[in-house]
Amino acid sequence: MTDITMIEAAAKRLKGHARRTPLLSSPFLDEIAGRRVFVKPECLQHTGSFKFRGAWSALSALDPAVRTKGVIAFSSGNHAQGVALAARMHGVPSVIVMPYDAPHLKIDNTRALGAEVVLYDRFGEDRDAIGETLSKERGLTLIKPYDEPLVIAGQGTTGLEIAEQAAHEGIDKADVIVCCGGGGLTSGIALALEARAPGLRARPAEPENFDDATRSLLSGNIETNASGNQSICDAIVTPSPGQITFPIMQRLCGPGIVATDEECLKTMALAFLRLKIILEPGGAIALASALFHQDEIKGDAVICVASGGNVDADVYQDALRKYGTPNPTDS
Amino acid sequence: MTDITMIEAAAKRLKGHARRTPLLSSPFLDEIAGRRVFVKPECLQHTGSFKFRGAWSALSALDPAVRTKGVIAFSSGNHAQGVALAARMHGVPSVIVMPYDAPHLKIDNTRALGAEVVLYDRFGEDRDAIGETLSKERGLTLIKPYDEPLVIAGQGTTGLEIAEQAAHEGIDKADVIVCCGGGGLTSGIALALEARAPGLRARPAEPENFDDATRSLLSGNIETNASGNQSICDAIVTPSPGQITFPIMQRLCGPGIVATDEECLKTMALAFLRLKIILEPGGAIALASALFHQDEIKGDAVICVASGGNVDADVYQDALRKYGTPNPTDS
Repeated sequence: MTDITMIEAAAKRLKGHARRTPLLSSPFLDEIAGRRVFVKPECLQHTGSFKFRGAWSALSALDPAVRTKGVIAFSSGNHAQGVALAARMHGVPSVIVMPYDAPHLKIDNTRALGAEVVLYDRFGEDRDAIGETLSKERGLTLIKPYDEPLVIAGQGTTGLEIAEQAAHEGIDKADVIVCCGGGGLTSGIALALEARAPGLRARPAEPENFDDATRSLLSGNIETNASGNQSICDAIVTPSPGQITFPIMQRLCGPGIVATDEECLKTMALAFLRLKIILEPGGAIALASALFHQDEIKGDAVICVASGGNVDADVYQDALRKYGTPNPTDS
Repeated sequence: MTDITMIEAAAKRLKGHARRTPLLSSPFLDEIAGRRVFVKPECLQHTGSFKFRGAWSALSALDPAVRTKGVIAFSSGNHAQGVALAARMHGVPSVIVMPYDAPHLKIDNTRALGAEVVLYDRFGEDRDAIGETLSKERGLTLIKPYDEPLVIAGQGTTGLEIAEQAAHEGIDKADVIVCCGGGGLTSGIALALEARAPGLRARPAEPENFDDATRSLLSGNIETNASGNQSICDAIVTPSPGQITFPIMQRLCGPGIVATDEECLKTMALAFLRLKIILEPGGAIALASALFHQDEIKGDAVICVASGGNVDADVYQDALRKYGTPNPTDS
């Protein structure tokens, strides 16, 4: 099971391969949030999201004889790109099973990074069966997106950096809000903070109608989202927290925060204006929580993990058209 | 006159106040450029451009009794914001004289950062006379945008970071392309590289019709741009290189590179797609030079300084509408 030793071992394997992202801030955002806001921009990570960390962690730990046959992953996009690049950098083949309706940019990038992309219908086909057939035929190793200790350890390296960077800013007590799908990033960061910055507490942020982690933390059981809902936060619309990630979150995380799609669009525009980084909707939800749900947060500082920036240009233009011109309430 | 000792002294004064920006890259950009491309994203600096470095350097070196009366600056935008924030962080007043037609975002931000903004007509009024009157009345110290040794020293700290980061990437010989207006950033970086990474060579990048530095380097004299031209690169449309910056550039810089507005828009979209950073047109021109003028560059690696990201949402949407969807030639 993932622990601080595994996370630090992952950090050693990632050194020189993954990017150490900075901690950003803006007086304009502090004013909106009513406290100091720090943003960990994992959109600046290789492939535009934190997923490269977990993918590298898992691939670099494989037995070379196994790794050389290749890897397979299921992903709506960010995990796909992370695995594709990590495989290419290791010189091994990758197959990525992606839903037809994933953002074009994510599908195109995954292919351009050298992966073989197999598309399936999220509402009609069984992706696990597709994946199992391919794995058996070719001897591919499955890299799970979150419910895998080595992946959680890789994502946890983000938490090691946050612990150091927060100390440098003089912050020893604060919430660390994390964009949460299956909980790999949230649980990895929670484990790193427990060991290296016990005054910092991870909290999941989720979209409306996809608040499975938030409800699971409240009930104490793994809850599932109702089917049939939509959200622009494509990166984090997983049905429920993982079997491995949930117990970690239950032990270590503060309450979840739920933000709307519209709040995410507004946050994307504020990140354009104030931080000069590209956020995708799901990558904006932690910062959206800090900016627009300030009553649910305590303390004079908050840290938000901005998990990714792989957004299609048309969605991004929507955000700018609606919210890209600052008004007096924003500044 | 600015030298490496002044730059290193500025780096000490900036430590803990200015941000150390990372060095970014993308395999997609490497492919377009035909060599490894590294980007120093000064858009992630405080106030969204490198100008904060020079402003902080100058303000922090003032005699406190003088500084407390306040400072004044002339600027189309980025220097304005840098001076405004540096003044606010020092607890002193600032007055910024800006052209009416500067981007709204830059004017609004300068005001929101606590400066008193005085607008003037670039084509009718004498900004120097306006500034001189205000300075005399209130005892304000003028912070020049580039022809000032302490400002050049502050911008030069970017070059110290590049020297370290290039060594870390194993690059000991490469061109460092720098977005060039009056030459403060270019000459500061050139001085830092001369002392700390002599195999790296600074080269100015400029917009069509505003290629004064490029022509000055060719002729050996300070050349001036014809009046009446327009460019979307508002940050770097100065009329000529400075009296102090030009001799430094002449001694140390390689030939200039001239890129078109359209190449800048295309580069802004590529930075959206591949680096997840916001570039303004003038901030994109060094990377545009590396991507679209590769025949003018030698070596297997190139470093580009992306100087700022303060762009109005409508210009940014233009870039995305035209070039925001990748096509086969981009990847």
